[in-house]
Parts: sequence; C-alpha cells; structure tokens
Amino acid sequence: MADSPNCDLKSLGPLQLFERVTEQGEKVRALKAGKAPKDEIDAAVRMLLSLKLSYKTTTGQDYQAGLPPRDLVLINNGTTKEEDEDFVDPWTVQTSNAKGVDYDKLIVRFGSSKIDTDLINRIERAIGQKPHRFLRRGIFFSHRDMDQILDAYENKKSFYLYTGRGPSSQAMHVGHLIPFIFTKWLQEVFDVPLVIQLTDDEKYLWKDLTTEKAYEYARENAKDIIACGFDMNKTFIFSDLDYLGTSTGFYKNIIKVQKHVTFNQVKGIFGFTDSDCIGKISFPAIQAAPSFSSSFPQIFNGKENIQCLIPCAIDQDPYFRMTRDVAPRMGQPKPALLHSVFFPALQGAQTKMSASDPNSSIFLTDTPKQIKTKINKHAFSGGRDTIEEHRKYGGNCDVDVSFMYLTFFLEDDDRLEQLKQAYTSGELLTGELKKVLIETLQPLIAAHQERRKQVTDEMVKQFMTPRKLAFEF
Amino acid sequence: MADSPNCDLKSLGPLQLFERVTEQGEKVRALKAGKAPKDEIDAAVRMLLSLKLSYKTTTGQDYQAGLPPRDLVLINNGTTKEEDEDFVDPWTVQTSNAKGVDYDKLIVRFGSSKIDTDLINRIERAIGQKPHRFLRRGIFFSHRDMDQILDAYENKKSFYLYTGRGPSSQAMHVGHLIPFIFTKWLQEVFDVPLVIQLTDDEKYLWKDLTTEKAYEYARENAKDIIACGFDMNKTFIFSDLDYLGTSTGFYKNIIKVQKHVTFNQVKGIFGFTDSDCIGKISFPAIQAAPSFSSSFPQIFNGKENIQCLIPCAIDQDPYFRMTRDVAPRMGQPKPALLHSVFFPALQGAQTKMSASDPNSSIFLTDTPKQIKTKINKHAFSGGRDTIEEHRKYGGNCDVDVSFMYLTFFLEDDDRLEQLKQAYTSGELLTGELKKVLIETLQPLIAAHQERRKQVTDEMVKQFMTPRKLAFEF
Repeated sequence: MADSPNCDLKSLGPLQLFERVTEQGEKVRALKAGKAPKDEIDAAVRMLLSLKLSYKTTTGQDYQAGLPPRDLVLINNGTTKEEDEDFVDPWTVQTSNAKGVDYDKLIVRFGSSKIDTDLINRIERAIGQKPHRFLRRGIFFSHRDMDQILDAYENKKSFYLYTGRGPSSQAMHVGHLIPFIFTKWLQEVFDVPLVIQLTDDEKYLWKDLTTEKAYEYARENAKDIIACGFDMNKTFIFSDLDYLGTSTGFYKNIIKVQKHVTFNQVKGIFGFTDSDCIGKISFPAIQAAPSFSSSFPQIFNGKENIQCLIPCAIDQDPYFRMTRDVAPRMGQPKPALLHSVFFPALQGAQTKMSASDPNSSIFLTDTPKQIKTKINKHAFSGGRDTIEEHRKYGGNCDVDVSFMYLTFFLEDDDRLEQLKQAYTSGELLTGELKKVLIETLQPLIAAHQERRKQVTDEMVKQFMTPRKLAFEF
Repeated sequence: MADSPNCDLKSLGPLQLFERVTEQGEKVRALKAGKAPKDEIDAAVRMLLSLKLSYKTTTGQDYQAGLPPRDLVLINNGTTKEEDEDFVDPWTVQTSNAKGVDYDKLIVRFGSSKIDTDLINRIERAIGQKPHRFLRRGIFFSHRDMDQILDAYENKKSFYLYTGRGPSSQAMHVGHLIPFIFTKWLQEVFDVPLVIQLTDDEKYLWKDLTTEKAYEYARENAKDIIACGFDMNKTFIFSDLDYLGTSTGFYKNIIKVQKHVTFNQVKGIFGFTDSDCIGKISFPAIQAAPSFSSSFPQIFNGKENIQCLIPCAIDQDPYFRMTRDVAPRMGQPKPALLHSVFFPALQGAQTKMSASDPNSSIFLTDTPKQIKTKINKHAFSGGRDTIEEHRKYGGNCDVDVSFMYLTFFLEDDDRLEQLKQAYTSGELLTGELKKVLIETLQPLIAAHQERRKQVTDEMVKQFMTPRKLAFEF
C-alpha cells in the first residue's frame, strides 16, 4: 500500500503524516541524486504532493521541512481543537462548515462585540450617510470600542485609521481589497488620517524570501493599494523594513510593547514554540506599535494620545487583543477595532482565498476571460445537480460562493435581494447567477487595473515618505 | 528565630530564600498600610534588607519581585552550577575564589583561544610598537580569530572596531574605562573606524527605567567615553533607541539575525525563560547587528564584507558566540574578538565592580578625598593581620585588590614588578601599597574629569550623528 497513500492516510495523526511527508521528501531527493528513471521520480513526486495535501487537510497547515505540526491551539483559551470547531489565527482559517466560519461563536470566543443594528444606525446618524454595504450586510460584523470612537467623533475629537497588509507576493486577489475598500470609505466619511502598514519584515521572517524581495513586494502591493483611490494628503503607507529605520517614535513603541509582553503570552496567543526564531516571537510588537499615534511623530506632531481605529479581517484580532492588553500599562489608549469576515476561496467558505493557490483566487491582474473561466469552473455552487431539481427545490445561497461574492461587490441592495429570492426559488440557475457575478467583477477589476496603471513609482515614493498630512494636531 | 534571619539563612536554597524575601516584603507593606509603630516597621525593613542580601549572596542575583531566581545554568553546555564553579554571563559574574574567575577554565569552557606570547609578539611586529599593558599583563587574555585580523592588516585589508556599553546609570566607574582605554589604543595603532553602541534599549528592557531616562544615561555616558580621547573623525557613537530609527541598514541586520536564531538557542545561551518579555528574548540580535558593516552604510558606503574586531569583557562573549554562529548563514564574515578579564570590586575579585554598589566602585566623579577613603577603607588587602606577621611572611598580590588595580593602571612595568617583590617579601606594607594606588588613580581620574568638562553637548551630538568617517570604502 506504500504507493497508494490516500487509502490509509485518513487514519494517521498530524505527527505521523509529518513523518511520512519527510520520509517521502528524502526518497525524492535520493532518487533525483541517484539519477533514477524519470517515471520513477515522477511517481515519487506525485506521492509526495499527495502526502502534503493530506497533511494540509489534516492540520490546516502547509508542510514545512523540519517544523512539526503546531498544536491546533484555540486562541486565548488554551484548549485543543475539538471536532467541528473552527480554527482561526493570523496564518490559518479552517472550518468544516460549507457556510464558513461561525462568526457568532467567534465573537464569543474572542470576546469582541457584534456590530448590531443599533450601532449601524448610530454610525448612520454620526456621518449623515447610508452605511457602507459591508456594514449593512454584516461583512464587517464585529467590533471593539467602536462606540468610543463615535463618542469622540461626536465631541469633535479626532482619531486615525490603521490597517495593513503582509506583502507575501506581487499577486493580490480581490479578497485583499476588502479592508482597503472599507477603510477608504471610513476615511472619506470621517475625514481622518490613515496609516497603512506593509509587514515586509513579517514576510521575510515567515517565508523563504530575502529582505530585498519582501520590500519589492511591499512596493508593488502599495501600487494596488494606492489604486483603491486613497488621498495622498491624508494617507501614509509604510514598509516596516523601511520605516523602522526612519522613525525613532516607531521603534520606541515597539520596544515598549516588547517590554510588556512575555514569551508565555505570545505562546498562548499565537501558538509560537521554542523552535520558532526570535524574530517571529517579537514580531507581534511591530504590528502592535502603529496603534499608538506616537509611532508617527511627523503626522501627529508627537502627540501620544490620539485614538486609533483598526479595520481588519478577524484573523488579525490576536495582534490587537495583545495590543489592547498592553496599552494601559504603556499609558496609551487602546485601539478600537472593526472586524470583517474572511473572503471565501472560490472552492467554498471552508477557508479564505489564498494568493498561493491560483485556482482559489481571482487576481487583480486577471483578464476578463480568466475571471469568467475561474468563476464558471471553480466557484462552488449551491445549486442542484440537475436543472429539474434546481427548478423544483431552488439553490442554497448560504453555501454558494458566487452569491457570497455578490454580497461583497454588488452595491444595489434590491438587486441582491432579487437575486437571492430568484436563486432560492429555483427561478435563477447557477450559470445565470455566475453570469451576474462575472459581469460585476469584470468591470470592477478592469477599472482597478486602469487606475493601477496610473500609479507611478514617484507616487509610491510620495505615499511612502514620512511627512505631515493634511491635518493639524 | 524569625527575627534573626542571618542565623538560619545559610541553609536555605535560592527558591526558599526568594519566598522568604517575598513574604517579608508583604509583611512590610502590611505594616505600612496598617500604620504600625515606626520601630516595628523599621525592624521589618531591616529584616527585609538582610534577607535580600542573603538572597544576593546565595544566587548572585538581585531580588526582583515576581521573578524567581534564574537557574545558574552554565553558558553553552546546559549543565547546572557545581560547587566552586565560576558563574559568568552578561548579567552576573560570581566566583568563590578570592583570586577571581579562573580564566584558563573559561577559555576552555567558552571555546576561545588564549592570547599567548606568540600572538602578542605578532601584534608587536604588525604595529611596530610595544603592545599595550593590558596585553602585556594578560588583562586582555582571550581572543577569537585575532590572527585573521592580523593577516588582513598585513595584506592592507581594512577592518573596523566595535565596542559598547549598557548605560544603566549616569555613574561610570574606573572599571568601565577598561574596554575604552584599550579600544582607543587599538584604533590609534591600527588606524581604523570605530563604532560604539550604547544599549539604552537593553537597559530600558532590563531595568525600571523609562526610554527617556535610558537615552539620557546614554548621552551622559557618551561624554565619559568621548573624554577618553576618541577621534571624532574616526568614531561613531550611537544609542540604539536613536540609531535604530535612523538607519535601515541596522534594522535589516537585526531582523536577519532574528530570523536565524531560535528561542531554544537564546534560552541555552542566555538562560531566558518563558516568563521573560519578548524584548529581552529578541535583544541579543540588537547587540549582534553592529558586528556587520552593512549596519553602518554611511561609514562603509554600503559595503557588507568589512571584517569587525570587538574588544570587550569576556562576559559579553555569549552575544558574539551567537553572532559568529549566525554570520555564515547570513553570508557575512564572523566578527573577531579580544576578551578582557573583569575589573574586580574593591571588596575582592569574587565579583566585578558594580555601579549599583557605591562602596564597591571608584567612580569617575569621585574626588581625590573620596578615592583615598574608599581605597583605604574598602580595598581588600592581601596583607597579613599584624605588621610583624606581614614583615615575616609577606603579602599576597594574587588576592590584593590594590595590587590588581595597579596592574590595570600603572604603566611602568619595572615599578610594578618592584612593588610586587616588595609586597610579597613583606618589605612593603598594605598602607604603602594603597598609597601608590591612590597616587596613581587620583591624577588619572582628575585628568579624566578635566577632559570631560570640555565635552560639550554639541560634541556629543556630532559623535552621535550618523555620518561618513575619515576612511574610504
């Protein structure tokens, strides 16, 4: 049975699988070194890939040579993964439910607050505008201290926005735009400064990348972010590798966070082990520090007490839970948060869209044809097996990825509701629903590509230069 | 017996003592809170101080609330402390031998090389001058790769010097001058650039200090360092808190070191535990990074491969053992090292001079009278109990602190030898030997004070400004 790994792999535990992958990797290397026949090598490689896939399915982690599987420790409570329990941390999102992660449970587990109708109404009153579709549709579904931000805003006290991205490759997909689309809207309605962190140092630490490559990705990603339409006079984008060496305020906050957090704490929050490098262990402080306005003396005139609001996907919350824990001991205000759901992979909401799997993602560089093909071929359907059955029983919007994507990108509430009704009743077929999505995404991505073409290196340089913004502090 | 702690404390282990100190601290707080009679509080405080002293004697560590004693783990081999074994790490130097640490054993344990007569002769040939008294007298006694530095020098290839200091207070004592006196001599005879790191971030992490205070100490210490007579055109002094925010080269090297060192490694080397803050855990990379010339692009024109030579006390070696381990994986040359012995406390060579105990140290700010009093009162003597016995049996230079200090500061070899003979034979009395030391140190410290007065804030600023030095790369 040794050459037919999938038959008996289901019974293996994570550590046994890890050992099987390691052994098979050594076998492949030995065959290559010994210049074995091509078909023998190919077979061994296929087996290796198959083992790696089983490993990933079982552990929710990519196989890394020399790094045994991390314990699937649930964030913040130290208990181990139960059957059917969702797993969410900054590196892994995994659920067995086709509807996606149970976000109500996550709110309870993380100890955050639900964005309810009252809060949405209060935001509407405060800004005097219709709330963004991401709020109306529960895409940003959880928060911490958003009421304090509104209190401050209503009392004419300023705050600032902080969001970010880990530049792991040049390729950004549509899911990556979610925090930026929402942050841009927040900036416009509240008219506040915005800082965007590109954690190229994190990517250097976690991936097989040079610092130069990580910084290059940061600059390339900055172009896609700028193409979202941010106002240069109100926005500062920075690479850690670059900005850390140009701001003493930033480093001072990093080391203050580092003084107030122990290894025990990051072990509990992020699942680090004794085999992790000291760079990973201390990195959370680098993502925490932009939550404090003194990290940006050039923007805030050295002021230490400006409140921060962080829109991000919920998997980033562990960093900011840690930050909020530390802030009072640093004499700083706790950052407030707005959490979004994950953007599902084309194959279904069990995991989030990943740039490392081209078939799971629609990239910002995809052509209209590629978009069409990917959606038609890969988007998981909640429709029935035959047209007859579909007409009779209707489709299931809760698991249909095309419908999910439309909730993210189709602005018109009435149209979305009509589509839902028609699909659920069986009137609208899967192919027709996909066509609506294709026609929604194609112009949106084409427009993004058009704007991105106009982003020059000079503009990137300006956005990334530490400077005063169009606000007085 | 509860009020007479010294009687039964000797039998207690470090952890038991730790608990006794903690309990007594709580008792003092309770008495104060309950406004108990003054004499009752005073007695409890005396007992607390006595317990703390026993704790320090037993563990070699200052009592810190909430931090149980660190295991006295020997560096690099993971075995625990044996009876009569010396303990040396960057924070603690302890031996039961009045002659001081057994440096030959330390060379074996650390895996460094002895600075032998051959090497000293080779240095003399290379520089065409008499070697410094610190070399002639075994004060710099150990090295790593000094022959490579000489190979390079003889082949007209340049290198640079790197040394440093942790600015834990404004007060520097004469022992702190040792690396700087020697480094200044090295710089003059080899004519190479010098970088001096002030680890104010380390002191912020380890001590109860604000970043502002730590930075202030760094600037004050810089004045004493400048007063040693360094050439501004050839020397760059930097505070970590300051320079890290002004140099992307420095941070890039820090994060590269941090990627290549695991928590397991720093645990083994420095004895960190899971309860240590992540700042301490990642700090060793910050002391490592100046060993790579690319941390100073302004000096070395961005060149990455300039060899580094680090003169330092041997207790700093763990940092650079780690650095040398990492360097090849970073594609960088390993730094070479010259290690000095410790500067003994006035009370004896069992531990090094410490700025936190005023009676153990002669400070650079001491008046001639203070110097005289401290030496006469506190300098441990190798003389006999009575003049008669001393005349008959002679004194012991191996344990006499005044004689040890003279080996550091008296330039004249013949005079030193005469003093040794006379003291050993009983011809010279302790008081007379102390008088020689007093007359040696008083003018030396007065001259230092005179030079320090001339160090202006503007000069400090210039030394600490990142800039090109008087060398081409």
